[in-house]
Amino acid sequence: MKLKLKIMTEGKLVHRKDYRYFVPITTRWMDNDIYGHVNNVTYYSYFDTAANEYLIKEGRLDINNAPVVGFVVHSNCSYLSPIAYPDKIEAGLCVKKIGNSSVTYGVGIFKKGEDQVCAYGELVHVFVDRNENKSVSIPAAIRGALEKLLIN
Amino acid sequence: MKLKLKIMTEGKLVHRKDYRYFVPITTRWMDNDIYGHVNNVTYYSYFDTAANEYLIKEGRLDINNAPVVGFVVHSNCSYLSPIAYPDKIEAGLCVKKIGNSSVTYGVGIFKKGEDQVCAYGELVHVFVDRNENKSVSIPAAIRGALEKLLIN
Amino acid sequence: MKLKLKIMTEGKLVHRKDYRYFVPITTRWMDNDIYGHVNNVTYYSYFDTAANEYLIKEGRLDINNAPVVGFVVHSNCSYLSPIAYPDKIEAGLCVKKIGNSSVTYGVGIFKKGEDQVCAYGELVHVFVDRNENKSVSIPAAIRGALEKLLIN
Amino acid sequence: MKLKLKIMTEGKLVHRKDYRYFVPITTRWMDNDIYGHVNNVTYYSYFDTAANEYLIKEGRLDINNAPVVGFVVHSNCSYLSPIAYPDKIEAGLCVKKIGNSSVTYGVGIFKKGEDQVCAYGELVHVFVDRNENKSVSIPAAIRGALEKLLIN
Repeated sequence: MKLKLKIMTEGKLVHRKDYRYFVPITTRWMDNDIYGHVNNVTYYSYFDTAANEYLIKEGRLDINNAPVVGFVVHSNCSYLSPIAYPDKIEAGLCVKKIGNSSVTYGVGIFKKGEDQVCAYGELVHVFVDRNENKSVSIPAAIRGALEKLLIN
Repeated sequence: MKLKLKIMTEGKLVHRKDYRYFVPITTRWMDNDIYGHVNNVTYYSYFDTAANEYLIKEGRLDINNAPVVGFVVHSNCSYLSPIAYPDKIEAGLCVKKIGNSSVTYGVGIFKKGEDQVCAYGELVHVFVDRNENKSVSIPAAIRGALEKLLIN
Repeated sequence: MKLKLKIMTEGKLVHRKDYRYFVPITTRWMDNDIYGHVNNVTYYSYFDTAANEYLIKEGRLDINNAPVVGFVVHSNCSYLSPIAYPDKIEAGLCVKKIGNSSVTYGVGIFKKGEDQVCAYGELVHVFVDRNENKSVSIPAAIRGALEKLLIN
Repeated sequence: MKLKLKIMTEGKLVHRKDYRYFVPITTRWMDNDIYGHVNNVTYYSYFDTAANEYLIKEGRLDINNAPVVGFVVHSNCSYLSPIAYPDKIEAGLCVKKIGNSSVTYGVGIFKKGEDQVCAYGELVHVFVDRNENKSVSIPAAIRGALEKLLIN
């Protein structure tokens, strides 16, 4: 992830204006791998930290007791330029698609104050009855919150 | 990730026969998240553990000193059914595409002995000159190793 | 952790014979930090993986539903010589002290087949009623299992 | 770690006034384990994040290229009361002892704005010549920075 990739970015969510909600994240010593940059794996921990923080704060999700919770069924990430501890970063969050029981988030990782992402990707939550293990309609409070981040 | 998804899996690498190299992985207490299953993030740590183990063992990659190393530029994962510590698991590895400087791996996560993946996805390495930070042709020893895993 | 420390090891649990139960653990790419060795933090993930595996297998602990579970109230680790992905390792486990509601484990991390630890330390579990949040006597099945590992 | 422990805390570094430098840390979704609180392992990632941030900012440590770096040779943590994602926290840092080649930090983890630690412990760095793998005297710039945090 050390190199700056020249990629086609039309239609991609690579700019700050593409995101609707921002979460500051502090990098950690152990985020850096042997090559001196944040490991590819760790970006996904930024993704679900951002999405769940939004669900908790704006969708009133109670991760300890809620009967319906979001399980991740798909995720992806493209890495454009490196970040490294102790960089200050932010995760940008938006919603690309809301279905009956699932939501597709767009997530971008920015160095603090920069306009272009260092990495971006998607996270898909399916909402599930915690006891029955079956997908269910997105609860109203959460759906309302998600609609506020919808970009199309 | 608790629910079993009924998904279209034609053309997807969801069976043991689709993979060419297997790496046993031991799950850890902290892999489980608050919902009681291995967190979505952690699967990617299985992915790059498997790919790098193959590069080290079969491609003679020296992760400490090699002048050319592999940086991850893209990854994705689809989660079909949950795993949880203390499950015994294996990562299956294959190669879907080899370019001049990049390789696309297929990776599947299996419960030990099972035929169908619990999760599967891709990892893309670009090989890079460690000092110059520029992509370079895949070194011959690594290319030879990768070709052995090619599935098409 | 790169250097071999010459330390006084009398009375310390630094040899294979000091441990009663062994758990093979596979290291991961991201365990290595920027200095090229397993990060100090990660050893503790080996510690609680070993202790909980024993509680689950031999003490019949159900981590999802048991009314009484073990919370860590203290841990420590001394690092003698480095390990690094892709090393094969084992965690050795013993029990140093059993109280009414708490247990002190000794844990040692060995390179596979080696006689002397690379790192060793302690983990202390207090058993707690999950709903009431109060410490309770160690359940009989677990106490029985723990006594089998007692070294004094 | 769910229960509040009544412990003897005289002489222990459990209050905000005991620390000299504070680092805000953002918790992550995956920090929580199956019991719903930050896993015992993860606290140590807060510890070395705080210590290294101080070395980098105040001691001018270059973690990529410095010929002398700090390796952790001992760490310990006592857990008094739980924290959980998405809590906002701070790590407090002080220096308890400076030797010729080693330093013992005190580290405390606070919920944002609280006066008493949720957990506290120690981290010991030995400074090492990166190529020779031998302990060396603490470099002057780092020693100067460490002395500013000395509490006795």
